[in-house]
Amino acid sequence: MNQYKPQILNIAEICYQKGLEYVIISPGSRSAPLTLAFLRHGKIKCLTLTDERSAAFTAMGIAQQTQKATILICTSGTAILNYAPAVTESFYQKIPLLILTADRPPEWTDQFDNQSIRQTNIYNNHILKSFNLPVDTTHKDDKWFSDRIISEAINLSDYPVRGPVHINIPLREPLYPQPDDNFNYKNNSKIISVKKSEKVLDDNAWDELTDIWNKSQNIVILAGLNDKNISLEKSLTEIQNKSDAVLISDITSNLFESTIIKNSDMILSKLENAKNLKADLLITFGGPIVSKSIKNFLKSSELKYHWHIQESGLIGDTFQALTDIIDVKPEYFFREILNKIPQSEIKTYSDKWKKLQEISDKNITEFFNQDLEFNEFKAIDKILKSIPENTLLQIGNSMVIRYINYIANIKSSIKVNSNRGTSGIDGSISTAVGACIASNKITTIITGDLSFFYDRNGLWNNKLPSNLRIIVMNNHGGGIFRIIEGPSKLDELDNYFETKNTLNVENTAKDFNLEYFKIKDYEHLDQTLEHFFDNSEKAKILEIETDSLINSQIFNQFKLIIK
Amino acid sequence: MNQYKPQILNIAEICYQKGLEYVIISPGSRSAPLTLAFLRHGKIKCLTLTDERSAAFTAMGIAQQTQKATILICTSGTAILNYAPAVTESFYQKIPLLILTADRPPEWTDQFDNQSIRQTNIYNNHILKSFNLPVDTTHKDDKWFSDRIISEAINLSDYPVRGPVHINIPLREPLYPQPDDNFNYKNNSKIISVKKSEKVLDDNAWDELTDIWNKSQNIVILAGLNDKNISLEKSLTEIQNKSDAVLISDITSNLFESTIIKNSDMILSKLENAKNLKADLLITFGGPIVSKSIKNFLKSSELKYHWHIQESGLIGDTFQALTDIIDVKPEYFFREILNKIPQSEIKTYSDKWKKLQEISDKNITEFFNQDLEFNEFKAIDKILKSIPENTLLQIGNSMVIRYINYIANIKSSIKVNSNRGTSGIDGSISTAVGACIASNKITTIITGDLSFFYDRNGLWNNKLPSNLRIIVMNNHGGGIFRIIEGPSKLDELDNYFETKNTLNVENTAKDFNLEYFKIKDYEHLDQTLEHFFDNSEKAKILEIETDSLINSQIFNQFKLIIK
Repeated sequence: MNQYKPQILNIAEICYQKGLEYVIISPGSRSAPLTLAFLRHGKIKCLTLTDERSAAFTAMGIAQQTQKATILICTSGTAILNYAPAVTESFYQKIPLLILTADRPPEWTDQFDNQSIRQTNIYNNHILKSFNLPVDTTHKDDKWFSDRIISEAINLSDYPVRGPVHINIPLREPLYPQPDDNFNYKNNSKIISVKKSEKVLDDNAWDELTDIWNKSQNIVILAGLNDKNISLEKSLTEIQNKSDAVLISDITSNLFESTIIKNSDMILSKLENAKNLKADLLITFGGPIVSKSIKNFLKSSELKYHWHIQESGLIGDTFQALTDIIDVKPEYFFREILNKIPQSEIKTYSDKWKKLQEISDKNITEFFNQDLEFNEFKAIDKILKSIPENTLLQIGNSMVIRYINYIANIKSSIKVNSNRGTSGIDGSISTAVGACIASNKITTIITGDLSFFYDRNGLWNNKLPSNLRIIVMNNHGGGIFRIIEGPSKLDELDNYFETKNTLNVENTAKDFNLEYFKIKDYEHLDQTLEHFFDNSEKAKILEIETDSLINSQIFNQFKLIIK
Repeated sequence: MNQYKPQILNIAEICYQKGLEYVIISPGSRSAPLTLAFLRHGKIKCLTLTDERSAAFTAMGIAQQTQKATILICTSGTAILNYAPAVTESFYQKIPLLILTADRPPEWTDQFDNQSIRQTNIYNNHILKSFNLPVDTTHKDDKWFSDRIISEAINLSDYPVRGPVHINIPLREPLYPQPDDNFNYKNNSKIISVKKSEKVLDDNAWDELTDIWNKSQNIVILAGLNDKNISLEKSLTEIQNKSDAVLISDITSNLFESTIIKNSDMILSKLENAKNLKADLLITFGGPIVSKSIKNFLKSSELKYHWHIQESGLIGDTFQALTDIIDVKPEYFFREILNKIPQSEIKTYSDKWKKLQEISDKNITEFFNQDLEFNEFKAIDKILKSIPENTLLQIGNSMVIRYINYIANIKSSIKVNSNRGTSGIDGSISTAVGACIASNKITTIITGDLSFFYDRNGLWNNKLPSNLRIIVMNNHGGGIFRIIEGPSKLDELDNYFETKNTLNVENTAKDFNLEYFKIKDYEHLDQTLEHFFDNSEKAKILEIETDSLINSQIFNQFKLIIK
């Protein structure tokens, strides 16, 4: 009996032994050996999705929750290019992916066979590393090479910085097994493990840093995109108690404690506030920041120091003021500095912020308590209040995240994710589906209509999870262009920026067998939200139809209040 | 008064002066200066599409018909990665595209601003050239550089080998104009033109080639993917009259004359035929070949010579037998060789082929005249007979093109296109929409269901052309896996290869306001086809529902006849 492609079977076995849990397969013939290797291995969960763009975002959504690489398998040709948007988002958001692309043997590149492109190094700009598996594995070094690449790739996707890793896999015919072929998985494949270390600072470094801290008057700690992290949250709370430092959180930072300044976007919209609140020491951690006000505020703050706390990986100088990269984990940094700084009795700076935060809370409450015409901003405020504790929330890009960043009122037990690595509108639905698959918790995605239709193939999934809750803010176009300054007064607004359309969500809901709700007023919104998040047999989708003209009027009213 | 971004306005003006006709814009803020530059120029047709994947395939469909670069405009970030599948297809199919991607200024790369990725050289493997426009244009050399790049890029997209060219365009804020900004287009921008030359062979080369021709017994001329070309067609017909050479055409070659061997796929499925028809001189031109039988036949034909006729560009050794690259245009080559070869009285070799072609014609006719259960193969035969003269046909990938390649009965006035550069299923609908826009002729796309749903955002177009005719062969999955050898007997077939689904086309037709027809039997198919291709106010879509089990049984019956 013939042993079917042993080196390919080893890939599945090594992935399993390294603890990977999920593989998303897009059907194809060239990739059939990979597909079969994982299916017949039987211990890694396999899911099949046809549209590779959505498949990759779904894989990313899973990995975002599990913090382990999701495996992706696709056939040769343009299939692998359809992965590129999610690969890039994963690269910037540091989400691990193990991308296995089937290829023809290298001698067949550019020989005009079907579905044959130049796959080597295809994700060039946005991948941690690209490997090519050897095509012939007769020599014992080839076998070592092939097995070693799998371990290396999985290790690299996880450490020292998480992200996407690509293995291109040339495969010779015959691709399919004979009926009597053997599928023996060796459990003694070569595995390379990593014993992870923690980076620490020495006493000299700490002396220098605490010295600067103590000399600083106005300290801002700013949290960007970040995972939920209980021990980090604890240290930060204690630092706020002990010192006059202000903690400002981005909506994607998963820090929602009541002592935190959440409405910086509102507070800093007022020029006078921005002037009175100038910081001299800025300490940042985590990923990108949504708020443009805070970026402008910090760029003009004449900071003496900007420390960015991050162990390894890409670091940006977002506020053009970066002075020190502190190459340790934020949880280590804040735990340690807490013990090194003195108790501060005077809280002048943080009190100023807190007062403004209180005013913002009041302003927001009052604004939404008004009798406002039906609009998406108030609808989102209601939604945020209704989303149950201990669930997941995926925030769509474009206008949705801007609204939510203003309201900034998310229950602290909710875990927030958003594709802010590159802020594209192209994969939010798929990412949310991935989160549902990995978490089993109710997962809500709030999205605009363009982003929804862009990625509706994320729902093209024979096993669509029932914990999915989609809320589409349908203003029939790119409402953001009517709201932001610049395009809103152009003659070309309607046709070339907002690009009005008449699409509705109902047909898509039918296509993919989702329970569908449509509302156009507050009364029905309240009623629907009451049970929308209950467990159910089917995934649910809620279409909230608003008028983009009214939306922009209401948002302009809001801006008048906060300016 | 302030002149709004003069170098950006120049792009539109230079494109216009170089004769480009169409721009496809995907909305965005970073790209707003480009969008406005083209809209306000007013002499290039502008179309807005939201999903960049479909936008790029639509642009490609237009350029496929006009043979001029279509301009693509998108914003920064993952938007530009969504272009990649169409860019790659254009690269291999040699279709000109001018891709203008907005970017942040280079100093902001990796600084975690929104929608900011590493855009330089992003299409690395599949682009003719990538440019970066200078971000500052205060120095006069910058202005020259900026204008020069536009000319260079357009020239390169067209000559010597057509294909996609990328210009990455960093843009500083403010992006939007002030109300009183001036939009003056200079008509004296720097333009570089190309006087194209024709490559010819000298007498020595011709002597050598005609000598080999005269010594060869069994000459096969094989036409791959090619545009309609009347003068080439004429020379080829005369060569067949004058010599014993056999002309075999691929379904994408746009050569449908009655003297041509069209059913090579059928003829060569019979091993005995393949043995009796061995060639010694093979002359090829055009792009890829669909038929696997002909590839296998030629690989085992022990060819003495294989000449590939192509002026410049990538050349593959598809049959592992290539001996000579003849670096001239096929129309020149065949026109010239026609005058150099003697009149041949004996037509032994070509007669053998012609007899087999006649048998194939008869077999196909008899096969479809049988009382067959409703199936997609026979449905496609009926469709091919109904498509009107002088229209366009886009053939979808996967099973559809294999069926059509077997039937090979397309009216000679029909122009055929198919995304065979990379044979992806990801952009056929969009490509067909592009062809409709550029041609005004009735344009039929025949596609499988997976390919249709994959690319249905190709219909997300506020100006969907009414000359579009979509025919979806809906067998509710990837029927090809049930039909080709290998996967058809696997336990995993249903769930992981064919990936059964219950999607129907009706909801999509509603979404995009197409006239919808659904048929499940021959009687209604015949009735519907009678008027389906008539002019109409709306685009039309026909869903043909078949059973994938029956499809595979019928196709197996067919294979028994031809083997």
